[in-house]
Amino acid sequence: MSQYMGYDGISLEFLKKHMVVVGDSVKVEADTTHVGIIMPRYEHADDKHIVLKLASGYNVGLEILGIKKIEKLDIQTPCVKMQEKQAHVKGLSKILLLSTGGTIASKVDYRTGAVTPVLTAEELNASVPELSKIANIDTEEVLSEYSENIMPKHWMRIAEKINNNIKSGYAGIIVAHGTDTMHYTSAFLSFALAGIPIPVLLVGSQRSSDRASSDAALNLIGAARLITSDISGGIYVAMHQDTSDDMVACHIGTRVRKNHTSKRGAFQTVGDKPAYIITDNNIQENFQGPFFKTDVFTPSIKLDSRVVLVKYHPGFDPKMLDWIVEAGYRGVIFEGTGLGHIGDITHESVKRAKDRGLFLGMTSQCIDGRVRMTVYESGRDLLNMGITPLEDMLPEVALVKAMWVFGKCDNAKEAEIAMLEDIASEMSH
Amino acid sequence: MSQYMGYDGISLEFLKKHMVVVGDSVKVEADTTHVGIIMPRYEHADDKHIVLKLASGYNVGLEILGIKKIEKLDIQTPCVKMQEKQAHVKGLSKILLLSTGGTIASKVDYRTGAVTPVLTAEELNASVPELSKIANIDTEEVLSEYSENIMPKHWMRIAEKINNNIKSGYAGIIVAHGTDTMHYTSAFLSFALAGIPIPVLLVGSQRSSDRASSDAALNLIGAARLITSDISGGIYVAMHQDTSDDMVACHIGTRVRKNHTSKRGAFQTVGDKPAYIITDNNIQENFQGPFFKTDVFTPSIKLDSRVVLVKYHPGFDPKMLDWIVEAGYRGVIFEGTGLGHIGDITHESVKRAKDRGLFLGMTSQCIDGRVRMTVYESGRDLLNMGITPLEDMLPEVALVKAMWVFGKCDNAKEAEIAMLEDIASEMSH
Repeated sequence: MSQYMGYDGISLEFLKKHMVVVGDSVKVEADTTHVGIIMPRYEHADDKHIVLKLASGYNVGLEILGIKKIEKLDIQTPCVKMQEKQAHVKGLSKILLLSTGGTIASKVDYRTGAVTPVLTAEELNASVPELSKIANIDTEEVLSEYSENIMPKHWMRIAEKINNNIKSGYAGIIVAHGTDTMHYTSAFLSFALAGIPIPVLLVGSQRSSDRASSDAALNLIGAARLITSDISGGIYVAMHQDTSDDMVACHIGTRVRKNHTSKRGAFQTVGDKPAYIITDNNIQENFQGPFFKTDVFTPSIKLDSRVVLVKYHPGFDPKMLDWIVEAGYRGVIFEGTGLGHIGDITHESVKRAKDRGLFLGMTSQCIDGRVRMTVYESGRDLLNMGITPLEDMLPEVALVKAMWVFGKCDNAKEAEIAMLEDIASEMSH
Repeated sequence: MSQYMGYDGISLEFLKKHMVVVGDSVKVEADTTHVGIIMPRYEHADDKHIVLKLASGYNVGLEILGIKKIEKLDIQTPCVKMQEKQAHVKGLSKILLLSTGGTIASKVDYRTGAVTPVLTAEELNASVPELSKIANIDTEEVLSEYSENIMPKHWMRIAEKINNNIKSGYAGIIVAHGTDTMHYTSAFLSFALAGIPIPVLLVGSQRSSDRASSDAALNLIGAARLITSDISGGIYVAMHQDTSDDMVACHIGTRVRKNHTSKRGAFQTVGDKPAYIITDNNIQENFQGPFFKTDVFTPSIKLDSRVVLVKYHPGFDPKMLDWIVEAGYRGVIFEGTGLGHIGDITHESVKRAKDRGLFLGMTSQCIDGRVRMTVYESGRDLLNMGITPLEDMLPEVALVKAMWVFGKCDNAKEAEIAMLEDIASEMSH
């Protein structure tokens, strides 16, 4: 193990010249003064920066050229051993950290500004030394994918990996996941692993782990602290809460949505507070539960992905519905307008789809609020044609649930019953 | 004109017995005590309720059986003449009120609880007597459609009606519109009527105009007050702000979205404050403008609706893209994930669509925030294939803009340039 792990060229020279190594606590004077721990870099990183982890959990990348002074502080940190497999500490809970790729397991290429996924769960764990004080972390890599490339088949691999580790004595499982589709994955896990006795927290980051202002460490630490606080079983998404640096929000896995493209507090529980808010010295519990409507853990890790999400809009061409029927889909989740409407131009195609045995479910593109199709005669027409209103299920969650439902149901009638059964807090009452 | 307009059976008997008529100010003791003006009812209304307009602008429907006492107050109101064509008052500004249908021009059937569109602009105006104190209102019916049935061809009819009345001395135009798709219509008007010298305010209501707790009057009054406060030209959506009873928010027509299925404060300006907040005694201006990037009014009321909005999701079938190409569409607006991504499973179909000359634009299903496709290599791959990132344009607005752009552009290259030109505050910088 090198004391200069990942550094070379200019940055390596710089560290040697100032007699500091990875894991040292230092005070650096640049544009402003930073106090933090020198972090390892990863392969392909440029040689013009050093990375510091600040007390807040954020990493900051400092350009060598801009550093006026660097001074080693007289503090020991657990960071020096980060590359070695950490020995388990007696008395601490065990957590399993699974990695699937995404920004949280990514590094930034400072030359191009681009981000690529390269870190394994082990590297991720090693880069957040605070975790070892909270729990004994085992790590495993399941996938290495940007989350926009995560497909239903990947959901099943993650679910199976979790299911295989339920009886291994873990207090909980953390799944490091890209943020783009982590709410789709959390929804699938919520249905497929209904009744799971331990908490599973999906954790991502909006800024890559070796980048200035990464929220990866903060989110991982918050997730580990929540798991060790002994919460009950469920599937959650734990992400940075807002622009302040010390709050992690933990959202119900079936009620969460990525509502901003870039800001750190991008994830929100739709129409409600997050289930838990984790701050430096407190865990606030907003969710009364139960998460699952069943106490019995009955994993059902299968699906049929022949379900499509259709967002209705003025000018929508009903021929697309006809194509969906011909293409062999088993269900359509509509993102209708308002209380759950689609224009009367679709009626004939809707009837044909019903005649062919498809399940047609209605959600709203308003995102927040409940569909109610009895208020307007147009909605009642759609009800009469056999479209099923899906309460206040989020469109994305309804899609995932329908795929899961068709993994075990033979026809639209069975599917309708299963869709309206509250499994994992996906509907509020 | 009947003094009992719309009342019959039990409710007519009740009014006669207590010697009160439509337009009277009354105090009614039921479960609670209400003070208001007796409103006319419309054809098909049941005979078991009377409707009062309260001082707040809300209507409340009171069941005859629950009324303990009704007492006529000694106040004259302008309401008594509501059925007559109102004479213009000298010195007041002129406003044109266009009706297109929707809840604002609807009544509730108290027997079934259902709502149907029946009111004309004239009836709507008559039912809000306060309007006549603010401006001289001319009225005209353009359509009578639920807004989920409003199609691009209807947008053009509304735009033409407005365009034909620009030079008639109106201080502004109010378009009463169903709420489900009013933000799509406002977007079209913003592009088609770019540079319009007077304000056009789309106004809806979340509860029908003759129903308890209707926000129709409040929204119409707020819109009329804003117009007569002499704001500059632009296309806006004026709707109830939140659960308090006296605030109307006026949103930029290209930055607004219906974000809740049912609550009165359903409309929000995405990522920003509303342009104006109208309270009883104040108009707060948040928008600095200019609304349009051009000072010249150059209406361009045409479109090509062969554009489709596609929401990407895990399990998305790229064959749908192939179908879109074969079906003769000229453009696709993707609602990608996060910063603007779609899975690599789509790459081959994306290339085929580009080869066939389609315009492919990227927005985000996060709704808020800007797409940025240079951050991840996956995004850069999509850029290289020719997908155009559409900044922070809302997906629905990008769809409408693309339809409008294809009304005047011959090919995808021209369309791309036009799509990225800020016309009507649809992109923030």
